[in-house]
Amino acid sequence: MSDRTIGLLTDFGLQDTYVGIMKCIIDDLAPEATVIDLCHEVAAQNILSGAYLASTVIPHLPDGGVLVGVVDPGVGSNRRAIAVDVGGRYLVGPDNGLFGMVLEHHDADTVVALENSRFFRSDVSATFHGRDIFAPVAAHIARGVSLEDLGPTVDTGDLTQLPFNDPYLGDNRVECHVIHRDRFGNLITNLSRADLEGWLEGSDPRVELDGRKVSLEKTFSNSSSGEPVAYYGSTNQLEIAVNGGDAARYFGADQGTSVLIQRA
Amino acid sequence: MSDRTIGLLTDFGLQDTYVGIMKCIIDDLAPEATVIDLCHEVAAQNILSGAYLASTVIPHLPDGGVLVGVVDPGVGSNRRAIAVDVGGRYLVGPDNGLFGMVLEHHDADTVVALENSRFFRSDVSATFHGRDIFAPVAAHIARGVSLEDLGPTVDTGDLTQLPFNDPYLGDNRVECHVIHRDRFGNLITNLSRADLEGWLEGSDPRVELDGRKVSLEKTFSNSSSGEPVAYYGSTNQLEIAVNGGDAARYFGADQGTSVLIQRA
Amino acid sequence: MSDRTIGLLTDFGLQDTYVGIMKCIIDDLAPEATVIDLCHEVAAQNILSGAYLASTVIPHLPDGGVLVGVVDPGVGSNRRAIAVDVGGRYLVGPDNGLFGMVLEHHDADTVVALENSRFFRSDVSATFHGRDIFAPVAAHIARGVSLEDLGPTVDTGDLTQLPFNDPYLGDNRVECHVIHRDRFGNLITNLSRADLEGWLEGSDPRVELDGRKVSLEKTFSNSSSGEPVAYYGSTNQLEIAVNGGDAARYFGADQGTSVLIQRA
Repeated sequence: MSDRTIGLLTDFGLQDTYVGIMKCIIDDLAPEATVIDLCHEVAAQNILSGAYLASTVIPHLPDGGVLVGVVDPGVGSNRRAIAVDVGGRYLVGPDNGLFGMVLEHHDADTVVALENSRFFRSDVSATFHGRDIFAPVAAHIARGVSLEDLGPTVDTGDLTQLPFNDPYLGDNRVECHVIHRDRFGNLITNLSRADLEGWLEGSDPRVELDGRKVSLEKTFSNSSSGEPVAYYGSTNQLEIAVNGGDAARYFGADQGTSVLIQRA
Repeated sequence: MSDRTIGLLTDFGLQDTYVGIMKCIIDDLAPEATVIDLCHEVAAQNILSGAYLASTVIPHLPDGGVLVGVVDPGVGSNRRAIAVDVGGRYLVGPDNGLFGMVLEHHDADTVVALENSRFFRSDVSATFHGRDIFAPVAAHIARGVSLEDLGPTVDTGDLTQLPFNDPYLGDNRVECHVIHRDRFGNLITNLSRADLEGWLEGSDPRVELDGRKVSLEKTFSNSSSGEPVAYYGSTNQLEIAVNGGDAARYFGADQGTSVLIQRA
Repeated sequence: MSDRTIGLLTDFGLQDTYVGIMKCIIDDLAPEATVIDLCHEVAAQNILSGAYLASTVIPHLPDGGVLVGVVDPGVGSNRRAIAVDVGGRYLVGPDNGLFGMVLEHHDADTVVALENSRFFRSDVSATFHGRDIFAPVAAHIARGVSLEDLGPTVDTGDLTQLPFNDPYLGDNRVECHVIHRDRFGNLITNLSRADLEGWLEGSDPRVELDGRKVSLEKTFSNSSSGEPVAYYGSTNQLEIAVNGGDAARYFGADQGTSVLIQRA
């Protein structure tokens, strides 16, 4: 049981010891668990980027694995802390929308509020629940503690929603948004391949960002160097890149920038 | 024995292979050890930040664990290398004050100078003791080598002091300093909750940074968005943050900036 | 077999989940393997920096270990993917010169093209071969799959060369280049100690960068604070640093800057 995987996804960055301390707590409670850094450079307090990044990981997390997500601007307030079972993988973190994109694609089997302090550190601070609540709870789940022991069940409908709109699919146009800018300056939108191909019904798309046309290709290496290109990325979302360049800089675009698609 | 934890705290950053090479050395000598990245983005050659970060970890490092600290501007000079036993946890690194804040709060049971080259790599460079001395020594400690085998005992009083002042606690005011700016721009001071509460004797504090008053709250989420707030952080030091913002930028403050406290 | 080491060297950075996802894939296929982050902040698409960094690691990678290298601007094009056996350690990645500096110093026992899709993820994307090809192939090698099973043998002479010149060793002068700038601003050249000492034949060198003389010392701590200094670094390449400072900023130098050596 205890050789399960615990993946950590936070906005703690790597210039402090916040992440290292969480790993010490886990190592102490569940020494056989494999701890994986999923990402710690989520933009500070950016729940939407965190939600996207969490959604990219869940399909690859080994069975029984636990994803601890800490992008938590409300730490110390009365926001709820939760654990979720999604088909035998587990999510642990604040109830602030951070798991919203995972739950769009995966049904929650169980959601509980973390209220049983027996599974917390004995002294819970007001500022560092990653150390005091989320890391120890994840370690206990990795050791086989069942979600029901952690606190009362929560109805999925009662969870805090991600404060973000779905793509708009109208008769004549689709409007989606950039939800994440990656390290290469690639712009990842909230529009899935399935949704776009369904809407296109076989016709060719005309993709526009900031009034400029972007051709849709199989991959970015199919475009000329320095040219913008749209393609379905590794998570099957519509992405926009510049071959050999940085699309965010090229377009002056960032999270929230809208992208327009029409039939050609 | 060899399934002990080795935590790494360096200013090597992550854009080179310095840290990866240290891990290869440890993996070769002590494959069962659990290696934890505590922090590698200590500001380059900033012993004071490193000392603070080391002090945040020690209470959480599992028993028998080894903290390897490498913030070492004097590498290749005649500065001493040491290993320290603090209550069954171990410190390994240069004798330059890096462990000074740990040793303020934890008594050293044993301190030795690293002189027995049998536990070093066979070819010690003048620039990379993390690879050639500290990583192999930590691996040997994790495998059960006793400190006494590593070199002669050193008197704690002979260790290099951290070049930094303690807080000033006067009759009418306390003056402390920012010792670390974290990734959120929070300013961590060298004033502990115990020292401040002892000095206040129940009266309310008036905290000032750069001539501006900062209210003391239980946590930063108790303040209005965009407002500065002082609170006791996760290490029980006095910290100053801006709710939803960046206190370092707000105040133009950084390591060394002084903070004044008076009785209200 | 499966407790082998897999080291990851990429330009994926740490602000996304690309690296975390590769680790999930490996953890699923080879849970007993030890995964080591060698470096993920290789400058984006900078094959030369990646080639240098790979060469620094190979001497320290435990026997049987696998280095997965992903600096891969041509992903999705028809560039070849390869695995290489260098004396019982393995390289896995694109055939774009990334392993060129390793192969200058270590003979390849076997090179194969990765063509047997049985060892890939079932659905290979056009943009993320780190996840879909390189991570699973590395996991299979760690579990004992032999290179011959992965695809047809490739002649070493057919591998893509690193697009970079060797140092020029003339009668009266040596000209080398900066191939990597590290986190401290130290400038690492492509000139090895062995080549330079052979050329000097016992005479003293006169090192010049940007028309300014730099003295050659045993280590950077042998120079005055703020002064530039040349020395043989931890990989026995000629490096230039500024004691207590940043040589890249001091000289306005970066990858590609040439360094001149004459006999004094």
